[in-house]
Amino acid sequence: MPRIMLKVAYDGTNYSGWQVQPNATTIEGCLNDALTRLTGKTVEIIGASRTDAGVHALSNVAVFDYDGTIPAEKFKYAIAPLLPADIVVVESSQVEEDFHPRRCKSSKTYCYTIDNNEFPNPLSIRYAWHVRRPLDIEKMRIAAEYLVGEHDFKSFCSVHTQALSTIRTIYSIDINKNVDNYVNITVTGNGFLYNMVRIIAGTLCQVGTGLWDVEKVKTALEAEDRTVGGITAPPQGLCLMDMTFNS
Amino acid sequence: MPRIMLKVAYDGTNYSGWQVQPNATTIEGCLNDALTRLTGKTVEIIGASRTDAGVHALSNVAVFDYDGTIPAEKFKYAIAPLLPADIVVVESSQVEEDFHPRRCKSSKTYCYTIDNNEFPNPLSIRYAWHVRRPLDIEKMRIAAEYLVGEHDFKSFCSVHTQALSTIRTIYSIDINKNVDNYVNITVTGNGFLYNMVRIIAGTLCQVGTGLWDVEKVKTALEAEDRTVGGITAPPQGLCLMDMTFNS
Repeated sequence: MPRIMLKVAYDGTNYSGWQVQPNATTIEGCLNDALTRLTGKTVEIIGASRTDAGVHALSNVAVFDYDGTIPAEKFKYAIAPLLPADIVVVESSQVEEDFHPRRCKSSKTYCYTIDNNEFPNPLSIRYAWHVRRPLDIEKMRIAAEYLVGEHDFKSFCSVHTQALSTIRTIYSIDINKNVDNYVNITVTGNGFLYNMVRIIAGTLCQVGTGLWDVEKVKTALEAEDRTVGGITAPPQGLCLMDMTFNS
Repeated sequence: MPRIMLKVAYDGTNYSGWQVQPNATTIEGCLNDALTRLTGKTVEIIGASRTDAGVHALSNVAVFDYDGTIPAEKFKYAIAPLLPADIVVVESSQVEEDFHPRRCKSSKTYCYTIDNNEFPNPLSIRYAWHVRRPLDIEKMRIAAEYLVGEHDFKSFCSVHTQALSTIRTIYSIDINKNVDNYVNITVTGNGFLYNMVRIIAGTLCQVGTGLWDVEKVKTALEAEDRTVGGITAPPQGLCLMDMTFNS
């Protein structure tokens, strides 16, 4: 049966994350409901990234099988009136029937945003973590270099992870501060463990505020033990920015 | 009695505007309540700009009289725990006892933000107006030039205005489109009538989408008649950015 891929953007503030759960409103649940109403058949999508409660995305990916009359590239228009305003399908297209967004090789880019002003900007409280103490960006960049490459990220993932292996590859971590005192930590890698980007952001903030020495990040990584890793930054600063798949 | 000035930032989404009204939650009402609790005396602030429901501010101004023991510059810290998260006092200072933020000469800058992508970005629906049709920025800039200067803006203000005179001076209108297809219309002037910036933004959008010829803006301005003016852009795109006072 033809497989359709959706590229989905959402404000995660009002959702209990991506993944369907009983008695909770989720992104996946809303998409399933909308597609089921649209196609007249029960649809259960397969998502690429099961983002946490409160985490946002500009470009998450979901696929489902469909043999009806709506052309793949028209789904983005057809589904719009069936979705809440904070979930938007920005692209739709047909993909190979065996394409599975979690089982193929991919590269994902997340951005973690920190409002580093003395007082939080009320226009960004849904989308940034407010850290009052000024961040030393240079130190954060040096610390981030320890994390780039293939490593066992056991110290940088939630103890609740269900992953069989905690080895992942980070291709790059870019850290920038703009004129409005927002710090963006942009992380690209071949996959991320549960809470991994939020723990990386939290840990780098501890370096940036001077609570942690730069070298402590290297020690924490090598320990392969979550209890010596840094804090988990709150969800609202995190946004899934981009995703590419290599077949 | 010493007069204290507060610089206030807020997300207007959940408020019925600035001004106190019966049975409605307003920015002014929240600030009055917080200051009354903080000082132990009934405080009624005087605001500089009575923004509409749903309009945001990074820098609105309010004053009140106070002869207690809290130093003026400490009010921004003292009031923080008494305000909701979407209202933030970013500066506090002492001003002249006769300073009145609506009766002295001032310059205000508003920014109106348009999301000009095919689909709305769910992360900006609270802060931008989604206009799908691509905007011709050059035409909007030419049309905006007709509005710069001292004019009677009767065609560009709500018929519900209570202003005695509808003559105002616009110092500048800058229009820019960024790489993410957001259009910012930044308007600076010596004062604005009820809904004036939203009508300017709505009208310039009608030019940008080709619905209006550039010259129609000149005709509308000269008509001094609201019924020939353009549409009123929705409130969520508007933000009061800055304000300066000349004594």
